[in-house]
Parts: sequence; C-alpha cells; structure tokens
Amino acid sequence: MAPQVTVDSINPKVIECQYAVRGEIVILAQKLQQEIQAKPEAYPFQEILYCNIGNPQSLGQKSITFFREVLALCDHPAILAKSETQALFSADSIERARKILDQIPGRATGAYSHSQGIKGLRDTIAAAIEARDGFPADPNDIFMTDGASPAVHMMMQLLIRSEKDGILCPIPQYPLYSASIALHGGTLVPYYLDEATGWGLEVSELKKQLQEAKSNGITVRALVVINPGNPTGQVLAEENQKAIVEFCKEEGLVLLADEVYQENVYVPEKKFHSFKKVARSMGYSEKDIHLVSFQSVSKGYYGECGKRGGYMEVTGFGADVREHIYKLASVNLCSNITGQILASLVMSPPKVGDKSYESYIAERDGILSSLARRAKTLEDAFNKLEGITCNKAEGAMYLFPRINLPKKAIKAAEEVKTAPDLFYCRRLLNETGIVFVPGSGFGQVPGTWHFRCTILPQEEKIPAIVTRLTDFHKRFMDEFRE
Amino acid sequence: MAPQVTVDSINPKVIECQYAVRGEIVILAQKLQQEIQAKPEAYPFQEILYCNIGNPQSLGQKSITFFREVLALCDHPAILAKSETQALFSADSIERARKILDQIPGRATGAYSHSQGIKGLRDTIAAAIEARDGFPADPNDIFMTDGASPAVHMMMQLLIRSEKDGILCPIPQYPLYSASIALHGGTLVPYYLDEATGWGLEVSELKKQLQEAKSNGITVRALVVINPGNPTGQVLAEENQKAIVEFCKEEGLVLLADEVYQENVYVPEKKFHSFKKVARSMGYSEKDIHLVSFQSVSKGYYGECGKRGGYMEVTGFGADVREHIYKLASVNLCSNITGQILASLVMSPPKVGDKSYESYIAERDGILSSLARRAKTLEDAFNKLEGITCNKAEGAMYLFPRINLPKKAIKAAEEVKTAPDLFYCRRLLNETGIVFVPGSGFGQVPGTWHFRCTILPQEEKIPAIVTRLTDFHKRFMDEFRE
Repeated sequence: MAPQVTVDSINPKVIECQYAVRGEIVILAQKLQQEIQAKPEAYPFQEILYCNIGNPQSLGQKSITFFREVLALCDHPAILAKSETQALFSADSIERARKILDQIPGRATGAYSHSQGIKGLRDTIAAAIEARDGFPADPNDIFMTDGASPAVHMMMQLLIRSEKDGILCPIPQYPLYSASIALHGGTLVPYYLDEATGWGLEVSELKKQLQEAKSNGITVRALVVINPGNPTGQVLAEENQKAIVEFCKEEGLVLLADEVYQENVYVPEKKFHSFKKVARSMGYSEKDIHLVSFQSVSKGYYGECGKRGGYMEVTGFGADVREHIYKLASVNLCSNITGQILASLVMSPPKVGDKSYESYIAERDGILSSLARRAKTLEDAFNKLEGITCNKAEGAMYLFPRINLPKKAIKAAEEVKTAPDLFYCRRLLNETGIVFVPGSGFGQVPGTWHFRCTILPQEEKIPAIVTRLTDFHKRFMDEFRE
Repeated sequence: MAPQVTVDSINPKVIECQYAVRGEIVILAQKLQQEIQAKPEAYPFQEILYCNIGNPQSLGQKSITFFREVLALCDHPAILAKSETQALFSADSIERARKILDQIPGRATGAYSHSQGIKGLRDTIAAAIEARDGFPADPNDIFMTDGASPAVHMMMQLLIRSEKDGILCPIPQYPLYSASIALHGGTLVPYYLDEATGWGLEVSELKKQLQEAKSNGITVRALVVINPGNPTGQVLAEENQKAIVEFCKEEGLVLLADEVYQENVYVPEKKFHSFKKVARSMGYSEKDIHLVSFQSVSKGYYGECGKRGGYMEVTGFGADVREHIYKLASVNLCSNITGQILASLVMSPPKVGDKSYESYIAERDGILSSLARRAKTLEDAFNKLEGITCNKAEGAMYLFPRINLPKKAIKAAEEVKTAPDLFYCRRLLNETGIVFVPGSGFGQVPGTWHFRCTILPQEEKIPAIVTRLTDFHKRFMDEFRE
C-alpha cells in the first residue's frame, strides 16, 4: 500500500494553525539571501535586513559576559579549580557557578532535574520576584520551561476542552497564542486594543467580547494580556492593570500574563508592574484569582533566544489542579538545564559590590539605551511617511505602524490574491531586502493594515533602513496613488 | 466570582494522561528522602536508591570531557583566543568549537536558529547517519528537538485527528507514548511483546491487533517500535525489523522508530540497525514508506539528559506535509542551541588521530562496559529470586523482571485498593529505599506483574542493592506465601 499520510489526512488543527513570524515573508527572505550569496548582483541590495523577529543576537547584539561565563563554568566544572580559570573568568562568575553547582543535586548539570526545574534555582527566582514586586513568591509556584512558548502551550492544554472553550486574546496579538489555541482546538475570543489611545486595553471592550462569546455558547476560560505589548509596544498603566485584574476576578477568568518584555521599557513615564504585584496590592490573594505569569530569557536586554530558558509562575490553582500541571511538565521530564541556570541569572544578575557589577551594568544599559534610541528613530521615520502612523514605542521590541494603503494598491493586491499588507511587505522585501511581518499575522481591525517591525537591527544599520524604506515607500505610493 | 478552574473543569485528556516514570512511587521516594535528610534514623536505610529513571548523571555517571569542553567554549567564545584556554582545554575541542561557531550564522549561540536546527549541525548529523547506515541522509530531513519527547509529541499532533485515529504501541511501552496519545486525543492500539521469546515482536500479533482495531472503527496511522527496547531491554534482530518494515509498507503505516538507545547494546550477538538502514537495504525508498527515527543526547554512553538535545529524521512525507511539520516546529521557534551542539557532537565524536580520541574512547568504553556488567549482575540477581524471572539485558538501560506474586499478596494489595505491582514496589521502597517503577505504568499482559529497574546506579552500589532487594524479597515472600 502507498504511504497514507497526505495533507488531507493530517490533523486539521495543524493545518489551521498559523505562525506568521516564521511564515511566507520569512521563507521568501531566506530564499533571497541564498540567491544573493550565490549571485551578489541578483538584487539591488547586498543583505537581508531582518526586522521580523525578536531575535537580538542574530542581529549582532552581544550576550552579557557574566551570564556566559557562568554558563561555561557550569558546562565544564572540571576547570573551576584550575589556576588558569581565574585569569579567564571573573571572580564572581566562578563564585556564582560554584553556588549553582552546589544547588544541583550531585552537581549533575547533565541530569534531568525536578520537572519544575532545579529547586535552588527556583528559590533564586522566587526571591527575585519578591524583591521585584514586594509580595511573597513561592518556589513551588515556579515551573521552568524551554522559553515561554511551552509554558503557554501547557496552560492552553490544561484549559481547553473543546472548541466551546474560549481564550480572550488581544488583537493584534503575538501569534503563539492563536497558534496554540488552534492546536489545542479552542476558540480565540478576540478583544481589540485601541490604536487611537496608544493600543490601550479597554475593559468595556473585554466585557463586550466576553458577552458576545457567551451568547455564542463559548465558555471563556482565560484572558491573555501581553505587557509590554507584542506587537504593539505599549506599556499598560497600573490603573488599567487594576481594572483588568478586577474584570478577571469578577468573571472568574484565569489571567495569563505574558510579561517576557518586563525589562524592555523605553520611556521614563512608564514602568513595568507585574500583574501579580497589581493583584496583591489590590488585596487579592491566591484564593481570589488564578494568575499565571510568563517570563523568558529570550527578551529583556539579555536576548538569549537560543538558550530556551524561561518560567511561569502559577498561582491560585488548587493542589489537585496543580498536580495535573506538574504531570504535564513531567511528561517532558524537564526543561534544559542551561536555560534553567540562565533564567536564574537574568532574575538575579550581579549586584552592587560584585566584581562584575560595573561591566554588567555598562553592558545592560548600553543595550537598553541603544534599543530606546533605535525605537525612537524608527518611530519618527515611520511617522514621516505618507499614510503611515506609528504609535509610541514604549516597550517590548516592536513597532506596529498602520498604513493607509491607496485603493489602487489594495486592488492590485486583490488581483494577485494577496492580503494588502502582505503585498506591501513582499514588495518591500523584494526591492530593499527589509523584512517586516504583515499585520494580518497578528490580527488587526478589519479594513486596517499594519506591519510589525522590530527595533533590533544594529544601530549603525538603522539609517540605511530608514533611507531604503523611505525611498521604497515613496515609489510605492507614487505607483499606487489615485 | 470565585476562580473557576477545578479538576472537574480542566481538559479531560490531561486527567487521562499518566506518566508513571515520575509518578506515585517517585513522589513517595522524594518524600522519604526529605524525611531522611531531616531525621537520618527515620528509616532503616540512609539513602534512596533511584532505579526508576534513565537519568545516568543523577547517579554519578560522568559526562564525556570532550563534549563538555566544546559546550563551554561555545557558551563563552570570548576565551577562545586566550592563551590560558590552551592550557585548560584540549586542542581538538578548541578546533571543534571554532568549527561549530563558524556554522552558526553570525556565530550567535544566543540567537534562535532555523526552526529545524542550525544547518551546519544538521549537515554533521546527516553525514553521521550516512556513515552509520551506508545510505544517504538529507540534512533537510533532520528536525532538532529538546530531547526526543517534543519530537514524539509533534508526530502525534500531526497524525491524530480524533479518538478514531489509532497508534500501534508495544506493551510494555515507554509511557511517553501513552501519555502523548492521550494528550492528543487518539487511541493507543496495543500490541504485546512476547516475554517468552525475550520480548520478541511478532508480526502476527501486529496483524491481529491491527485487524481488531479496524473492526472497532479505528484508523491505525502509525506503528511505534522502541529498539533497543524500553522498558524491556531487548534488541531486535534484523530479520524481525525487516518483517516490521514490510508490515508498515503493506499497511501504509508510518513507522515511528524510537532509536534513542542505539549506542546501548551489551551483548556481542546483537547489533543495532536503524530502521532506515533496514528499509533502504530492502530496496524501499522514501516513496514506499513513511519513516521517522528519534534520537536523543539523553541516552547512549553520554547520558546528557539535562541538556535536552535530540532530533528526528523524517523521511517519506510529501513536501506539503513536511511544510506543516516545519510549521509546528516553528511555533516553538527552535530547540535549545546547547542541545543542538551536543546532538552534533554525540553523532560525530572525536575520531582516530584527534587529540582527545584516546581519552574519549576510554571514557566511552568505561561507561558502556560498566553498564554491561551492572545489567548482568542485576539480571542474575533477579533470576535468583523466588518467583521472579528476568529476560536478558541486551540493550537500553532497563530490566523488566516478571514477578509471580503470591495470591495472598495480591489480596493484600486489593484490600488497600492498590495494583499488586505498585503494592510490591511501595513496600520495597519503604523498607529498602530502592525505587522501581511498577509494570502497570508501562503496560503488561493482564494478570502478569512486573517492575522496571534501571541498570544505572553506580557500580559499587549494585552489591548493596542486590543484598537489600534479596533480603526484602525473601521477607515479602515469607509474609505472603500461602
């Protein structure tokens, strides 16, 4: 018999799932890159400028030295006692590596750990959360994961029973959420962020969408909030967060707080507050609200995407539900130990007085201030373009400008059966090598068009991006202006 | 409103999923360990002897020096050019680290990679598969994953549409398979390994179970084979593998080959053959059979469980199906880079002439020969116990002895509403500190009882395990003998 697996016979949930961040435009970009390598004169540009994904080190961002020192020493502890090591590594990285190794049962960095992660590292993380929020954190609430994505999948797997279960998600959203909900067979209940108020999150909109979902027979189980926002870059005001907590409490919803950009705030008037801190400051305890916070080593100033470290802090569930979350974690045994160690480091970096403190702060602030400058430059550049408006880049790693496409461009896109924003992004890529992700990959108010642009290209490349984009945009508008 | 998530309202597939390797007995063991730490005289033993899980480094197995040198250098490439590094690291580890870094775009070990894994590392793995099998391997067929578990989940997610889709699984089986099938809502179609013939895999049994499943309205989509076997430790004969390939071809089934123990063969008369090699040697190409092979850095002589490296080699699917597998991989962005590097290293270790070759071989063979001795000692010890028969430990890391429990013991177990094998294992743990996993966690012919015991405790501890087990078993049988 011929092999039986065809596209018509695979899981339709897999087919339905979409993930634009690595989708069509990116595949085209990789193809162009190969063509340029083979034939440098093939296109009017010599390199692909990836602005599609929050992957800082792929664009030249350096890793934080102290973190990498500790990882190397934990990978090869045999060198800890050698005199040459003192010349190669900072004294506090040696000390920290010893401390971490002491926290690992048998000092075995090659062993599966507890399925929630190494207890000593979870202690460190819980202490850091306490210090950040001013409220207690319990290491037994921490589940360490290979980046934040598996943690999100785990919660979706726990909560979604059928297509009658809904998850309230922001639109625009990071497509991990729509992908995970599709894979687990649930229903994405959209709520629209308000572009006019800087992508504000209105509780009235949440209520309206919840009611509508209910009237369609959907049981809404959870609310996803991404703060700072992806792809929108907004940072929620504390008052707004309080209203969201109140809404979740009133409606009995799990609050799934994507807080992976907690270190990425670029404007002095905004500050990151964890939802747990906000809920506890309102007097709400574990008994009042189910709250899950996701964190990752991939973002922040560290940007260690390839290490796949992260955790979720799970509060408010009963011991019996918790056991099932633990079981889900245990089926995959544990997350990678290097990522676990790194997660403890980003939550507990060098402190005043540590040998590496000054160099660490210089590296950290160098990255964050450069990101802030790049965000501002790009934001200003977008706002100078005809028909483009771009909200303030308050945080995260993205801008999500809106583009008023001429009717003629929309028609041209329709003729080639392409969404207008994809049409724009594809033209931009083919003519300039710049890679944006079309807004349709994140969701947008119907009839509006956007794209996501990261602020991550190296600072010295930003002027060229602005010039190329500006020139392209002018040509594009000239071509399609009515 | 009170929080709404209770055990009655979570996904029933999560509740149904079981994972005995980290289940009740292990939770009890962790509790006892804490009690002993607090009060050393609490039990008649001073330490817990974990024989429950294939986690070699947690029991003192050392990592392979060359592998860890390369990982450390890739984690902190800044030291590569320093003179002290030459004193601390072997020359070929420095050379290999440089080569790997050159294969990573931008030398960025902190960046997300291609969702299938770094291309250069996949080239290395494909070349190693070719050298192992004598048949071509394509780097584009390799999907690197965080250990083998996510790869197994990915294939189950792809293949299972509903409870009407079945996966043929060996009984006994590694409970990842039953857990993953349960989580994805499919049906496990069991086929029984024949204990009487050393856990042989009879194609007649496959045919019988396939027919029975079909008559129950189940569409069987794939066959799982674990070779070398977990928990049974058997190594399939090549003729047997040919018959299995023929069966999958005839029935149009995907062959999911769990080959993570490919380096763990302990008897001279048996040899590991990959299913791909067997299929190709029969003249079957990609067009004839869908074949997926799983490999992991967690097993073999390397035992790097905590690093979560692995890959699957996917052959025989159309380009359109492949795109959906790629999409699933891309939703999680990529597997961890440290694990990716390690997967390339275990498939391409030092070669004759390399500086580390001799010490590498000494480390490798030291571990493998010790594992073979431990397996034999435990096998012999089990076979000396009243009512216990244990098949030959040919490969993998486990023994799966059968125990003929006295009726009185079965009755005593029933009285406390416990499966008889769990009853035995719990008593064993409470009286000796030895942790076995009850056979019911893996599946067994109804009415037979087994337990799984790893061969991994340090060699010097094996005599004490044998003595404690023998004494306990005698007491247990004396207590319950009719």
